[in-house]
Amino acid sequence: MVKEEREKRMFVGVAWNCAAELKFLITALLFVCSLATVLQFLPSRFSLFSSADLRLCVSNVSAAAAEAAPPPENTPPPPPDQQDEVLESGVMKRGFKPYGAAAYNFVLMSAYRGGLSTFAVMGLSSKPLHVFGKASYQCQWVSHNATAGEQPPIATVTGIKILPDWGYGHVYTVVVVNCTFPSPVGHDGSGGKLLLLASTNGGGDRNLNLTDIVEALIEPPGSVNLSLYTSPPKYDYLYCGSSLYGNLSPERVREWLAYHVRLFGERSHFVIHDAGGVYAPVMEVLRPWIEKGYVTLHDIRDQERFDGYYHNQFLIVNDCLHRYKFDAKWMFFFDVDEFIFVPRKSTIKSVTDSLSDYTQFTIEQMTMSNKLCLSEDAAGKSFRKWGFEKLVYRDVKTGIRRDRKYAVQPRNVFATGVHMSQNTAGKTTHKTEGRIKYYHYHGTISDRREPCRQFLNATTTTTVDGIPYIMDTTMRGVAPSVKRFELKMIGPRLQRTRQ
Amino acid sequence: MVKEEREKRMFVGVAWNCAAELKFLITALLFVCSLATVLQFLPSRFSLFSSADLRLCVSNVSAAAAEAAPPPENTPPPPPDQQDEVLESGVMKRGFKPYGAAAYNFVLMSAYRGGLSTFAVMGLSSKPLHVFGKASYQCQWVSHNATAGEQPPIATVTGIKILPDWGYGHVYTVVVVNCTFPSPVGHDGSGGKLLLLASTNGGGDRNLNLTDIVEALIEPPGSVNLSLYTSPPKYDYLYCGSSLYGNLSPERVREWLAYHVRLFGERSHFVIHDAGGVYAPVMEVLRPWIEKGYVTLHDIRDQERFDGYYHNQFLIVNDCLHRYKFDAKWMFFFDVDEFIFVPRKSTIKSVTDSLSDYTQFTIEQMTMSNKLCLSEDAAGKSFRKWGFEKLVYRDVKTGIRRDRKYAVQPRNVFATGVHMSQNTAGKTTHKTEGRIKYYHYHGTISDRREPCRQFLNATTTTTVDGIPYIMDTTMRGVAPSVKRFELKMIGPRLQRTRQ
Repeated sequence: MVKEEREKRMFVGVAWNCAAELKFLITALLFVCSLATVLQFLPSRFSLFSSADLRLCVSNVSAAAAEAAPPPENTPPPPPDQQDEVLESGVMKRGFKPYGAAAYNFVLMSAYRGGLSTFAVMGLSSKPLHVFGKASYQCQWVSHNATAGEQPPIATVTGIKILPDWGYGHVYTVVVVNCTFPSPVGHDGSGGKLLLLASTNGGGDRNLNLTDIVEALIEPPGSVNLSLYTSPPKYDYLYCGSSLYGNLSPERVREWLAYHVRLFGERSHFVIHDAGGVYAPVMEVLRPWIEKGYVTLHDIRDQERFDGYYHNQFLIVNDCLHRYKFDAKWMFFFDVDEFIFVPRKSTIKSVTDSLSDYTQFTIEQMTMSNKLCLSEDAAGKSFRKWGFEKLVYRDVKTGIRRDRKYAVQPRNVFATGVHMSQNTAGKTTHKTEGRIKYYHYHGTISDRREPCRQFLNATTTTTVDGIPYIMDTTMRGVAPSVKRFELKMIGPRLQRTRQ
Repeated sequence: MVKEEREKRMFVGVAWNCAAELKFLITALLFVCSLATVLQFLPSRFSLFSSADLRLCVSNVSAAAAEAAPPPENTPPPPPDQQDEVLESGVMKRGFKPYGAAAYNFVLMSAYRGGLSTFAVMGLSSKPLHVFGKASYQCQWVSHNATAGEQPPIATVTGIKILPDWGYGHVYTVVVVNCTFPSPVGHDGSGGKLLLLASTNGGGDRNLNLTDIVEALIEPPGSVNLSLYTSPPKYDYLYCGSSLYGNLSPERVREWLAYHVRLFGERSHFVIHDAGGVYAPVMEVLRPWIEKGYVTLHDIRDQERFDGYYHNQFLIVNDCLHRYKFDAKWMFFFDVDEFIFVPRKSTIKSVTDSLSDYTQFTIEQMTMSNKLCLSEDAAGKSFRKWGFEKLVYRDVKTGIRRDRKYAVQPRNVFATGVHMSQNTAGKTTHKTEGRIKYYHYHGTISDRREPCRQFLNATTTTTVDGIPYIMDTTMRGVAPSVKRFELKMIGPRLQRTRQ
């Protein structure tokens, strides 16, 4: 007993011989956990904040400890028992004991300032919390501008939540919170931070309104450059790519990049998101363009931890929108098996200039066969040709209005989807036929084989497997100049890229 | 500073002047929380158990504290930053920071022993964790039979999870875990406890396999009466009612009770579950039958904390099944607007005896109008008549096979649904036509008005609002003897019950 007592003292001594910050943290934690311990012995519904919050903590911590150690010979202190009891009336009062956590309330990806008084916060949140509950958000701006000991000034505003992927069933849903304060915050260069208060409002337990405080954005003093929000953008065109995943064809990615850098020109930039698809051979084809400053690669593999719609692509595109909002006049959202095309005698600039009154325009699809090629390319000749050069049969049955892609002027957009944004200020137009379209080679990007499967002689309409096709050599015609462009820009280093 | 130091010491002193148990708990918590603190400063993926478990704890505790206190002037220590960083390759490595909890991993309602080596555990669990994840369960029996200092013997087995309400979208789903050990446990009278290890298997975060340890059942030494599992049951018939909710009609409940106590007889019992529907006037009509020992009322209002299918009725009926498994030969599952009927010259006993080879039989529905009455009951006479006495028009269009109810021999059932059990040992029969049926007066129980809306003369088929009805006075014929039975059993005390 004496020895035990001494050990305890030693333990406390060790914990106390740390840095001042640690001391404070440990004191705080000791206090909170003592409170948790004491609360277990009080009846529930006792205090302002339910003990279940803390129960959650105790139970999680115990579980973590139990995982590290071999299974529970010494089981952790159980959560406070809400034992079934027989009431005076003879009624059997039944209790329910909650344990652990199945999903996070909020997973922060990013937050960006969008002006003097407005911010956007991007994250994931438990889907049923939003579908069946009423989760809500508050934004607080805490200024650093406070003398020691004084309370820093705080501004609070309701966060407007936008759920861009509403309707797809998963563990998590994407949440974009718009925080717009009634007047400018942090504009005096004093620095500050944006807190997001994420409240479950009883979603997981009606007895509990659990609020998590998310430190969304920290602005050190002097770090904000307000001219950004009024200056003309650095780029004309910025491509926000969706989550790249799976066994991508390096050759198709190479072709896509050369084509689009040429199309969008010198004042363009491409943001590529790697959700596991950018393995070494794909990285090889990106590298020359990264070195030339045309491509930025984001490694977003960590989002795979959180089950959401298609590798959380709605989260990724919204991050991209807000991260680069002030860097480009136009932002394009489409996939790497899709090729934007503007007719001869026009340029991407002449097209976007003609649509500059619109915040958003959508782009019609040309559905291309991913296997039908010309017989003149047969006998091994097709291997030397590029994908969009040899796949020349266009599906004329599948409606061209289906599956549109789009571009926006990002300064007027609050959140974005995959096929279009539904949260914009300003007009949207779908009447872009004849001005801009995109060729879609579905399935070619994630197939590492030669795409040509069948060689046809037909020069006009033909029917294969019940689908009518027409020959369309528009893209084939562009191939030679794209190849020359690539050679000029980055030399021959990608010419031995494999399918 | 000196004062501050002293305060800290005082605080530690206070915490240390408690009972020995508290000291131990606080030491343990201090240790775990110190660990949490330290882990925040280490890179993630560092150790066997991720620091995110603990992060969860820290974040929850902070939130609870923040709710009690006015909003966060002094914000809690943020979770460990997974700051975005630019890798050597130029790739932008993006981080994701999780906060809080949106749903519990497991909510324990009950656990019951089902024999020498088997148990059933009833609870709720986050629905997406099961629909999109692979949550799993382990059962451990920890015997009390251990001398001091020695490790108690532990038996571990995989828990077989049954999801009886699969398919309905909510925050929580019902989970019944069958724990069957390869040999008897706790049968020597030494006592022990059943632990359920509930593992998320990365459902909410693929980096984390969070396991919560649920103390499902504690058996004090000598508390288990093994003869229960082999003795004949106490009752012939036990009714397991679904969650009662809303503005129920006391008069309809009164009629239902008198009818069914008479039908099922002296060796029967009724378990009623109050999810908010048993307010004072309904309690009045239950009370005489509770006093006579025919009715047990369970107050299950606390389950309203957890969003599930129809007031968690699948949880409730499974609790009832396992709680009373050895108390009745037959268990019936139907609603309080439904009346079981066996034809003249048979009794409920002769019917169930004829079906005793089956574990389960289903019962066909007679759909009754909830508003059409006989014109001879008009002019105020209907008020004195009982619901099943005056509602005599049967819907002959609605298929009688639709919406069957059922009865089981509970010792052979592992879990139960609402319309039938799909987890039984032994045979099920649906061929009960002509032997047993039930009359369904849909909507009458939750309507506190006089049900008769339209009075008809028709004695055979008639069509109202496009639905063909036929007069069926079977139940009307039984009413006089049910009224006499009620009077004999509990006297006139319920005769002034209101609609």
